[in-house]
Amino acid sequence: MVDWLGLYSQRVSSVRSSALRDMLRLTQEADVICFSGGLPAPELFPIDRFREACDLVLTVNGRQALQYSPTEGYAPLRRLVAQMLQPYGLRAQESNVLITTGSQQATDLIGRLLLDSGDRIVVESPTYLGALQSFDIRQPRYTVVASDEDGMLVDELAPLFRMRPKFVYVLPNYQNPTGFTLSMERRRTLVALAQEWGVPVLEDDPYSQLRYEGELIPPVIALDAAGGNGGYCGSVVYHSTFSKVLAPGLRVGWVVAPAEVIQQLVDLKQGADLHTSTLSQMVAFEVARDGFLDEHVGRLREIYGHRRDVMLQTMEAHFPEEVTWTRPKGGLFLFVTLPDHVRAKEVLVESLRRMVAFVPGEAFFPAGGGENTFRLNFSNAKPDRIEEGIRRLGAILKAFCVHN
Amino acid sequence: MVDWLGLYSQRVSSVRSSALRDMLRLTQEADVICFSGGLPAPELFPIDRFREACDLVLTVNGRQALQYSPTEGYAPLRRLVAQMLQPYGLRAQESNVLITTGSQQATDLIGRLLLDSGDRIVVESPTYLGALQSFDIRQPRYTVVASDEDGMLVDELAPLFRMRPKFVYVLPNYQNPTGFTLSMERRRTLVALAQEWGVPVLEDDPYSQLRYEGELIPPVIALDAAGGNGGYCGSVVYHSTFSKVLAPGLRVGWVVAPAEVIQQLVDLKQGADLHTSTLSQMVAFEVARDGFLDEHVGRLREIYGHRRDVMLQTMEAHFPEEVTWTRPKGGLFLFVTLPDHVRAKEVLVESLRRMVAFVPGEAFFPAGGGENTFRLNFSNAKPDRIEEGIRRLGAILKAFCVHN
Repeated sequence: MVDWLGLYSQRVSSVRSSALRDMLRLTQEADVICFSGGLPAPELFPIDRFREACDLVLTVNGRQALQYSPTEGYAPLRRLVAQMLQPYGLRAQESNVLITTGSQQATDLIGRLLLDSGDRIVVESPTYLGALQSFDIRQPRYTVVASDEDGMLVDELAPLFRMRPKFVYVLPNYQNPTGFTLSMERRRTLVALAQEWGVPVLEDDPYSQLRYEGELIPPVIALDAAGGNGGYCGSVVYHSTFSKVLAPGLRVGWVVAPAEVIQQLVDLKQGADLHTSTLSQMVAFEVARDGFLDEHVGRLREIYGHRRDVMLQTMEAHFPEEVTWTRPKGGLFLFVTLPDHVRAKEVLVESLRRMVAFVPGEAFFPAGGGENTFRLNFSNAKPDRIEEGIRRLGAILKAFCVHN
Repeated sequence: MVDWLGLYSQRVSSVRSSALRDMLRLTQEADVICFSGGLPAPELFPIDRFREACDLVLTVNGRQALQYSPTEGYAPLRRLVAQMLQPYGLRAQESNVLITTGSQQATDLIGRLLLDSGDRIVVESPTYLGALQSFDIRQPRYTVVASDEDGMLVDELAPLFRMRPKFVYVLPNYQNPTGFTLSMERRRTLVALAQEWGVPVLEDDPYSQLRYEGELIPPVIALDAAGGNGGYCGSVVYHSTFSKVLAPGLRVGWVVAPAEVIQQLVDLKQGADLHTSTLSQMVAFEVARDGFLDEHVGRLREIYGHRRDVMLQTMEAHFPEEVTWTRPKGGLFLFVTLPDHVRAKEVLVESLRRMVAFVPGEAFFPAGGGENTFRLNFSNAKPDRIEEGIRRLGAILKAFCVHN
């Protein structure tokens, strides 16, 4: 008989994967008010546009849409992605773009390309747990940098760069889970340090288009400009996705990087899944093209911005004084800090009893800590449900802050 | 400045990935008679059924189809896959099935789960190079077993099992690239050895439904029955795909394994791409359901069987005496052996000049060798093109066999 347990390579991080699994499971219960996942509002999906796109793609190019396709991705989609970065002055070409099976695959491939067991990487703390899960398989050592309202404390990086980390992983816009945005000044510092020390930046940017207030700040990759590869220095590997602005069910994301890095990632992607669904890519292109994506993002900004406001106002009215939280200018999440002695996991048990779900912050802290924090999503539930859920949560928190 | 070359982990096998890349590139040239890739015939894709399925899925369940979904896969599709193995007496449940982003992701995830650097795995030689590429990232040691018309020489396994390999990778039906099928007797031996030594079998089965002659032989996983997990012993991890029987552009494959193994693979898949395209999964289910898949496979068997016959007959008439080849009873490929002194790569240069593409066999041999072999695909080109291409190839081969 096969002893499976004895055969496993010791690489599965059960802590983070179970946190993600719990999150997905909670969001499937219909009656639960769901502040847990990073789920777009399903009632805003442009379903008619998708139906027309599927019909068009299959009618005009059915044989292509159902066949194997190049690992790099569907050429018109690669060009569209390159164009999306042009307003920031980045002259990316088709050869700088790889289409991935969601943004998750981007972090996975980059981890495979750069990490050997024991390598050091620098991350914000807290940071996106899905990225940590991708990196975990390589058993890296995490060096953490704290953040404040202006994002990662980049002044702390120089001494860390002396330890020769393989890269810095950063979510500059409306960070997950904090909602913080890296300031223009800090972006400039980050790029200067990356160039000086030769430590690449891995820029994860799923939310930048979902901006509800404040000025547009260029992505870090666009600041890395001083000639060289395709008009930039090539110190940054950038990745993003259609998941938050069109539909996560497609699993279509992308990497923008120096062409030589893209070519390495293509080789790795071949071994991982050959290529991303041809149908998904062609449909995503047909849906996004001719300015539709921008129009649709305009609608999302209006509606998600309102939901954020409703959540913040209701928290103001119903959360106890001892609790603090962030006020993000965009994205999908805000982050709550409880008094030191209150455990978010214990609050969650009570909260689920009253049919309200959120994600305890612990799993987002790669070096531990955060037991008294949790993340709230404001894009998925409708305003009346947000009010109701936050009111319930407020009552629970008051009890915890008094009794514990 | 970032020195990318100095940062890469030393894991990208450029030999195999460039072989795959060349293959995909060759198949994109319109005028080339393409015997190279494992491409289904695009004119046989059931495009109307796909169009109806997309329309239905988006009209009835659009919000679900475009949203995040569980890593395990779309439940009705998991049940359908479990049912597909029931005719062989395998009582697989939904919990024994993981939906993957094509069959390529199945080999990748299994490699991640089981392999540490330097681990030994047993493979046929030659074998599918895409699987080798998945495993390569873990830097395993390949132990090779030869095969003949009845498949892998399983009698050679026992001494190899003493070296404690992590698993045996086998393509029992119409193997890629040889076209060989593992006999019933050898399947029984293989399962008995796996159970006795506790060495799992990784069964790769993309082609079994494409049978043109001979009896139906149960998959290895169905022979691994003596009680235990879900009615079988759990010594086999099985994977297959819709790529060859419906459409590769969907990227929908699956693993069937003991539930505990599936749970580990789910954790790894979360880190790799969160889940397979929800739209692709739901559309694949709607297309395949209600007996359509079986009907469609019936059409493919008739047409591909005829193409195989045309290729074999034309080879018989036009290939020189010194050349030998296999006569597969199903699948997509046959395998050609040239006289020892003739190099398939040199033949390919000449062949491409005359617009005929095939894949030199070398990359399929994990322990080297095979320079005088190549693989021919007979599913993609139409019969008149097959005749024309094989005639051209025959003329080239005659020149090589005479002059060299």
